[in-house]
Amino acid sequence: MKPSGIITLTTDFGLSDPYVAMMKGVILSINPSAKLVDVTHQIGTGSISQAALLLRETFPYFPEGTVHLAVVDPGVGSDRRLLALQAGAHFFVGPDNGLFWPLFRDFEGAQAVRLTRSRYFLPGITQTFHGREIFAPVAAHLSLGLSLESLGPTVRDLTTLNIPQPYVKEGVLCGQIIRVDNFGNLVTNISARELTDFLESAPPRIEAGKLVIRKLSRIYADCEEGEPLALINSSNLLELAVKLGRASEYIGLRDGEIVGALVEVCRD
Amino acid sequence: MKPSGIITLTTDFGLSDPYVAMMKGVILSINPSAKLVDVTHQIGTGSISQAALLLRETFPYFPEGTVHLAVVDPGVGSDRRLLALQAGAHFFVGPDNGLFWPLFRDFEGAQAVRLTRSRYFLPGITQTFHGREIFAPVAAHLSLGLSLESLGPTVRDLTTLNIPQPYVKEGVLCGQIIRVDNFGNLVTNISARELTDFLESAPPRIEAGKLVIRKLSRIYADCEEGEPLALINSSNLLELAVKLGRASEYIGLRDGEIVGALVEVCRD
Amino acid sequence: MKPSGIITLTTDFGLSDPYVAMMKGVILSINPSAKLVDVTHQIGTGSISQAALLLRETFPYFPEGTVHLAVVDPGVGSDRRLLALQAGAHFFVGPDNGLFWPLFRDFEGAQAVRLTRSRYFLPGITQTFHGREIFAPVAAHLSLGLSLESLGPTVRDLTTLNIPQPYVKEGVLCGQIIRVDNFGNLVTNISARELTDFLESAPPRIEAGKLVIRKLSRIYADCEEGEPLALINSSNLLELAVKLGRASEYIGLRDGEIVGALVEVCRD
Repeated sequence: MKPSGIITLTTDFGLSDPYVAMMKGVILSINPSAKLVDVTHQIGTGSISQAALLLRETFPYFPEGTVHLAVVDPGVGSDRRLLALQAGAHFFVGPDNGLFWPLFRDFEGAQAVRLTRSRYFLPGITQTFHGREIFAPVAAHLSLGLSLESLGPTVRDLTTLNIPQPYVKEGVLCGQIIRVDNFGNLVTNISARELTDFLESAPPRIEAGKLVIRKLSRIYADCEEGEPLALINSSNLLELAVKLGRASEYIGLRDGEIVGALVEVCRD
Repeated sequence: MKPSGIITLTTDFGLSDPYVAMMKGVILSINPSAKLVDVTHQIGTGSISQAALLLRETFPYFPEGTVHLAVVDPGVGSDRRLLALQAGAHFFVGPDNGLFWPLFRDFEGAQAVRLTRSRYFLPGITQTFHGREIFAPVAAHLSLGLSLESLGPTVRDLTTLNIPQPYVKEGVLCGQIIRVDNFGNLVTNISARELTDFLESAPPRIEAGKLVIRKLSRIYADCEEGEPLALINSSNLLELAVKLGRASEYIGLRDGEIVGALVEVCRD
Repeated sequence: MKPSGIITLTTDFGLSDPYVAMMKGVILSINPSAKLVDVTHQIGTGSISQAALLLRETFPYFPEGTVHLAVVDPGVGSDRRLLALQAGAHFFVGPDNGLFWPLFRDFEGAQAVRLTRSRYFLPGITQTFHGREIFAPVAAHLSLGLSLESLGPTVRDLTTLNIPQPYVKEGVLCGQIIRVDNFGNLVTNISARELTDFLESAPPRIEAGKLVIRKLSRIYADCEEGEPLALINSSNLLELAVKLGRASEYIGLRDGEIVGALVEVCRD
């Protein structure tokens, strides 16, 4: 696969510390033509599943041959494995802690290798920042056309991730909120397909915290100001919002607890 | 006009969600050489006038032929028009909700078209993220040299924006605070020209909340620590500051209310 | 020295205002091929020592010939000098207020010049934003290969910075916390070398606020969840952390006060 020359970065490093810039400096020292695109550096500290879902949702919008560097790595320095993958005509680099499980599961023919060839690492490795010393240089080498096989032996048993799946119980489709976005909108794990299959063209009754919504809208502007609404969002998932307001305020949970809150859909 | 190859991005998407990265991926899939520069993604949610003024203030610092993508779009999916403009030797792309009014007003010969040619859009458009599916690909095509005319029919009646203008009432020049910046400085809508014309070389007396200032300084360092000061800022507007402090704390209003607070100038 | 074409940016401008984008626009107007990398724009307002230490720590990860633009400039417009430097095969541009002291001190043969040749500035300079009007264009010219000498006369007496150094008093090695990072980890000014020289292979007893730690760990994962730990971090400094927690919460000081808090090491 021909590299696109683009490397994306997804971390929980924030934007105040020098860690992201250090990784970019390392990449540009190896591939001065690399095109760097930040996905986000505001993944919740150590939140592997948040990063895994975000990466799975975002990568298909990039050109084939893009390298996606993902460093959410609470176990840095421990014996977790270091990985590079090829899936869906893209490359991925990061720790084997579940980050890449959704990709590996969804793409037939996905291949993973363990990073063992230290000639592709930065010399003088510390045990506390593998993002800078191993993952960044490996991503740079992949963006230059190095083959996956050159990096180390094949891995077939990736670390899995326990991602909550929607289920039907006593006639209720139960899902979870997986992201509260910048607009206070609540993204659920219920796909358009699961919702339609469940509703069978009956009108819905959707409940989450204090929100009760009795129809599916097509767009955010499709009701009165301050009214709650539900729609299928641009990632093909059920999303709850409040017109020109913040749906997150209706969930009645503290910020950190919101993700994972229950969403129930009935046939009305 | 020859494109510069640069595309700037201004949104209210924040930096935690994958939305900005998705737009960048779409752009780079169409124009792999595009140079992407973030203006800001921290426009207040749905704050069209904030984005409109910021864009108007910032774009002239970029090379001619730059494409400015602006997505503050609370009406996404509704029947508001989708626009591309050419003004002051730059291109602009986004929704017709007032975002581009200051540009259209200030630049004689500005031209706007409605985006109707879906061949320049992403296939399979959702109704909730036109930034990714329409504006980003159109910006990418413009950065490759596509002509404005190819995108759709001319629009002459852009949606206007009600931007507060300073006025003189009973011998007082009344303006508004239009931005509280990262330093807590208060940027007003009173231009250097309006101020000098009003003062006619009399000394000023400037009031805003608890701040009272009786002279114009040349620089921020031009008084004692903790003292308030007024100066003409780098965008040629009257600005109120506190040396090594935050002028915003003297306004006595909550954060969300600050913008729009009254500033009064008298001849002392 | 051949320029790398990369320009890094370090400021206290934040990410909401148009100031950073204006500087980028100015740079790209002069050198359309410049590769821009943000180090951080979230330096504490006017915190020269924070920026100076961060720059000193980060720049070596970039390729030689990179230009580092640093604008933390509370005295903008006053008579402080405007500088360009060459140190350790990199270039630096910004105000002479201590920002570049650690570089100038550490690199033999470092050269600095005062920026006096206005032909390399933006025309029509305001006195409140030298970052945009002087430092950004000078950085762009350096990235195109302009020599340091062309910019102005040599400066030999850079403004110094009072950076706290660890010291030993009554058998205790006393250091300070110089950064609380995004993970709540506490980075100290005690280097690996200073620590080993002091301990002489005795076990340590490290105290900071309510944290008491009795051994050096190798990695963050090297204890039970919620337990405090100390390690030599990826910048070769003593760092205090809490496994899957925030060490900063144990310091018992408010956010703004944390930096500078005392760290004491004894031989146990």
